[in-house]
Amino acid sequence: MFTGLSAFPLTPVINDTVNEDLFAALVRRAVAAGVDSIGALGSTGSYAYLSREERRRVATAAVQAAGAVPVIVGIGALRTSDVLRGAEDAQNAGAAGLLLAPVSYQPLTEDEVAGLFEAVSAASSVPICIYDNPTTTRFTFTDEFYARLGALPQVEAVKIPPRPVDEAERRIREVRAALPANVALGVSGDEFAAPALLAGADVWFSVLGGTLPDLALAIARAAQTGDAETSRRLSAQLAPVWELFRQFGSLRVTSAIAAELGLLPRDNLPAPLRPLSEGVQGRVALRLSDLDPA
Amino acid sequence: MFTGLSAFPLTPVINDTVNEDLFAALVRRAVAAGVDSIGALGSTGSYAYLSREERRRVATAAVQAAGAVPVIVGIGALRTSDVLRGAEDAQNAGAAGLLLAPVSYQPLTEDEVAGLFEAVSAASSVPICIYDNPTTTRFTFTDEFYARLGALPQVEAVKIPPRPVDEAERRIREVRAALPANVALGVSGDEFAAPALLAGADVWFSVLGGTLPDLALAIARAAQTGDAETSRRLSAQLAPVWELFRQFGSLRVTSAIAAELGLLPRDNLPAPLRPLSEGVQGRVALRLSDLDPA
Repeated sequence: MFTGLSAFPLTPVINDTVNEDLFAALVRRAVAAGVDSIGALGSTGSYAYLSREERRRVATAAVQAAGAVPVIVGIGALRTSDVLRGAEDAQNAGAAGLLLAPVSYQPLTEDEVAGLFEAVSAASSVPICIYDNPTTTRFTFTDEFYARLGALPQVEAVKIPPRPVDEAERRIREVRAALPANVALGVSGDEFAAPALLAGADVWFSVLGGTLPDLALAIARAAQTGDAETSRRLSAQLAPVWELFRQFGSLRVTSAIAAELGLLPRDNLPAPLRPLSEGVQGRVALRLSDLDPA
Repeated sequence: MFTGLSAFPLTPVINDTVNEDLFAALVRRAVAAGVDSIGALGSTGSYAYLSREERRRVATAAVQAAGAVPVIVGIGALRTSDVLRGAEDAQNAGAAGLLLAPVSYQPLTEDEVAGLFEAVSAASSVPICIYDNPTTTRFTFTDEFYARLGALPQVEAVKIPPRPVDEAERRIREVRAALPANVALGVSGDEFAAPALLAGADVWFSVLGGTLPDLALAIARAAQTGDAETSRRLSAQLAPVWELFRQFGSLRVTSAIAAELGLLPRDNLPAPLRPLSEGVQGRVALRLSDLDPA
């Protein structure tokens, strides 16, 4: 399951209400493109903002819409008991795997994060992916700590944050050397994906893959078959999009792309998050029209 | 209400359950010492970890236990609709004021934070205090942005984060110059309090005040009456405690102090947060026994 392209759809929140039909359509679109797995309720799926009931409904909709394609469900929460409830709900909904970020309000210690993963590992019957996202969790993983968590029974993958693309080869080698052999190496940060897959990463947990699945798949498949030139070229043309990601956050930009494609209304994020301004939305539209869909 | 010493009690969470009796005892203790207000459900009160129902019960218990002393209730949450529900619940419970931090998962823009405060200002009939805590929210306020929010109808105070003590005078002058005249200037970071009050800050939102109210009051009252020497001396003796705050976080250390004083069982924080190790707990005990209670 932790291989190839894992596509992370947005969870449309329209007027403070989760719209499962629009969400299911995003999932079906990614599945039709041929992605290897769906990542429901990732950061791109706004999991942190949703209630238990909303998450349960989204996880169920994802599994139904994905058919035979495995669904990985994000279960992060501030409190361990809420994480455990989320793990149970996700498994009941049919999740094939769980994605767990050490979400924090008070900055967490390593022992506290280890305790959280131990509790979830003991309670879960499906594989868990460590979700390292320092921008949203403010927890800094070391490679040694990946290894410590990777030794837990159900931990079978890690999702590492991006590095500059020219460090991809070294970084993938370093993390691979630290991880137990049974733990898949996943990457995030879409700009980092092509070089990381070419350097041997197992899976790309992709923001773009949830909204532009054909293009993300073309990049991934080229890398997987060793066609470095095609993978790098398709990825490089997205440089103006990566620049927007850096400036406005990948979530807001992806939300704008989905609106531009007519997949969602423009205001589709949970408040206080806001859609991009008209001006920036216009820049997003321009970038999109320039893309070679492969 | 936004004046003098505002004491922030811990919210005891024992075996994942909020204990309102132990909480009410902490509130009564601070009130008996003579604090000017109670800050319920602050960061020290673990608000971010609690459910709506738990927060409602804690706010109600605080108002009952505080009697005539005003209670300020923390209402921060990731989603605007949850913040609005929290504001309503707090007012129904009898809160005299609201404390609002721009809690984030996705880093927030100024316009997003302004939108949040506008929504709460429009919905609230009691004063609101802007809660600036970059360590837990990752949002950086500028003085200009304090002024922008301070112009909203119900915003009547700001709680600023600490600076090094030798910058207190300059910092208080700067913020005061930026704020509308009707907005009270509050400080947090207990080490920063004595010099900040001496420099003219209106209110000390105090972690220590919730657990060592007599000592915090002695520091505050000395500063308020211009007895700089006493205020500075009583504060300076706490240097080893501030050092523990920096190393382990003020929440974990205050939790350990409450356990050391027999006010709470040692394990009183919501998991994944953990009590300090035996060794550090021993250091806390030593520091406590050295203190001059004034």
